[in-house]
Amino acid sequence: MVVETEGHGRWGMDFEVRTPTDGARRGRITTAHGVVETPAFFPVATLGTVKALTAEQLDGTGTQGILANAYHLHLRPGEEVVEKAGGLHRFMRWGRPILTDSGGFQVFSLATLVKVEEDGVRFRSHIDGSERFVGGREATEIQRRLGADMVTCFDQCTSYPCSREDARTAVERTLRWARLCKEALGDSAQAMFGIVQGSVYPDLRVECAQRLVELDFPAYAIGGLSVGEPKEQTFEVLSRTCEHLPADRPRYLMGVGKPGDIVEAVKLGVDMFDCVLPTRNARNGSLFTREGQLRILQERFREDFGPVDQGCGCYLCANFSRAYLRHLFVSKELLGYTLATIHNVTFYQDLMAALREWAESGKGDFRFGCLE
Amino acid sequence: MVVETEGHGRWGMDFEVRTPTDGARRGRITTAHGVVETPAFFPVATLGTVKALTAEQLDGTGTQGILANAYHLHLRPGEEVVEKAGGLHRFMRWGRPILTDSGGFQVFSLATLVKVEEDGVRFRSHIDGSERFVGGREATEIQRRLGADMVTCFDQCTSYPCSREDARTAVERTLRWARLCKEALGDSAQAMFGIVQGSVYPDLRVECAQRLVELDFPAYAIGGLSVGEPKEQTFEVLSRTCEHLPADRPRYLMGVGKPGDIVEAVKLGVDMFDCVLPTRNARNGSLFTREGQLRILQERFREDFGPVDQGCGCYLCANFSRAYLRHLFVSKELLGYTLATIHNVTFYQDLMAALREWAESGKGDFRFGCLE
Repeated sequence: MVVETEGHGRWGMDFEVRTPTDGARRGRITTAHGVVETPAFFPVATLGTVKALTAEQLDGTGTQGILANAYHLHLRPGEEVVEKAGGLHRFMRWGRPILTDSGGFQVFSLATLVKVEEDGVRFRSHIDGSERFVGGREATEIQRRLGADMVTCFDQCTSYPCSREDARTAVERTLRWARLCKEALGDSAQAMFGIVQGSVYPDLRVECAQRLVELDFPAYAIGGLSVGEPKEQTFEVLSRTCEHLPADRPRYLMGVGKPGDIVEAVKLGVDMFDCVLPTRNARNGSLFTREGQLRILQERFREDFGPVDQGCGCYLCANFSRAYLRHLFVSKELLGYTLATIHNVTFYQDLMAALREWAESGKGDFRFGCLE
Repeated sequence: MVVETEGHGRWGMDFEVRTPTDGARRGRITTAHGVVETPAFFPVATLGTVKALTAEQLDGTGTQGILANAYHLHLRPGEEVVEKAGGLHRFMRWGRPILTDSGGFQVFSLATLVKVEEDGVRFRSHIDGSERFVGGREATEIQRRLGADMVTCFDQCTSYPCSREDARTAVERTLRWARLCKEALGDSAQAMFGIVQGSVYPDLRVECAQRLVELDFPAYAIGGLSVGEPKEQTFEVLSRTCEHLPADRPRYLMGVGKPGDIVEAVKLGVDMFDCVLPTRNARNGSLFTREGQLRILQERFREDFGPVDQGCGCYLCANFSRAYLRHLFVSKELLGYTLATIHNVTFYQDLMAALREWAESGKGDFRFGCLE
């Protein structure tokens, strides 16, 4: 079965599902900056750089697209600088697709809230304390000037636990802001993702999804999950939400996550993921391997001249030993952070490639070493 | 005129001078790990990594060889680990020549001295305070196990100012240790550099050089210069020293230096250099350019979309703007340190390439933009 959306002239992207659309599915997103085979994982390039990697190193990991952050780039260096540079692709020299997060999550988690208003949020920058206002219109304008291929609506992300009343309020705001965002986008050729909120309340999630779908976005994101709720709730909510999102539009689970969680989410029909886990863990010396996570600073690796992960073909594993990587981490050498990041991102991209193959072949259990 | 030393079976290296040997000269060092065209600059890889760069990135700068440090590698990860890994070339995956510093300089500058003894120095590690003894034999054994192509004698490096009496004592110790080192090296196929000390006293320098030459080393290093003495003294002492070093052996000026100082030293017949300046300055946001040093954090670069150095073809200058590099430094992003290091090392290697061309052509003034 092949489902096609409108040409990316209207949406900023095409999406084609190449397998039956119930459960795990194999798809392809086409943008002005190239193709993303789905399910796909987007490493996080918060400030316009996937920490510690050059574009070439990132490319070598099999990464098809990255997530940058409107909130962070608004504060530093400012969207006006990025726009004058010719947009984020040129500024950071990344030729493949870029998705930007609207900043909703950061405003509610990093910044000091001053006041949540009808059209957006007044807050103080976590960098210099300056007061700012960002709402649906502002977040859309920032993202337009950054020039990503895919952009997201400004939303209210709830933390956990969250009362039903607060979750209801967040859903209403998120829907109101989604309308503002869509209007503000105008005819910009960027694919805008509507974002489903509703905390752990399945009926609120379903309602939010349905009302977003009425607004007709080219793709849908699921936000506010994996924020501390029990794992069963995550997947129950995710499953109910996916059922109410159109099969012919990409589904993006924001900020998730651990390899095992990604596998479960793919089985429920999610197409896109982003998470800081592979890059952040790498800088902390925690390496994903097919035999589980490995803490490279442990003494037992001091004279271990084998590769970090026998099953991995990345630049680190092909060239260097655990002993050398440990030495770099013990000595706090910058190269260690680069090599570990290359490895962890490659691990995630290898996992996604295996998931794509599995979704396409459509049979049997999914297997990929240890998935913690 | 072509001067050839013995095959590198005996010395661990060949040296061929391809131009008249008075003043600036163009040479070629051949080792088991390949050729170094001289005059050459060796970036510093203290702990077995040129900070922030992969071997491929380093290769892209035109770097022919690197300097690693026996003192630092002895403390972390220990020469026994490096030896078990198959030597430093394999451990760090650098296929070109490696030179190791014996640790004399570090023992006298970084460590806490306990006692200078006849055959070496008792000191406390600057990492964990453990007491250690390193002398001529130990430094040679450490360097043998690290497996560099070129090694250096254990010497006593004086600081500035230094009384004549202290300088004399350091010269005697340095000569005594040089004999110990040569004996300890045995038939190891590593090219051992004798080191000339003598502070700012030309007669002590000359005497040290002459007595070292009697020991017959395949190459000679000049240590203890550029440690704070007036520039005129540096070059007077260097000039007098070079006159007493054999024309058919490489001359290596340790720890120097600024681009302008390298040019002056090449004119006096120096063939090899190492210095932390390009890499350390890079991490501090100070970029060498043909128009002088540039501090990338300055506000004036905020919207400067030109390259760091118009005359440079490095990965940074070919791809990124001053504005992007400034953004990375403002945000303390690791990629900034990598890009700036690539640039600064490339600047040094471009300078050396220009010096080689100039030495070979043998005419006119040397010109290479601004040399601070």
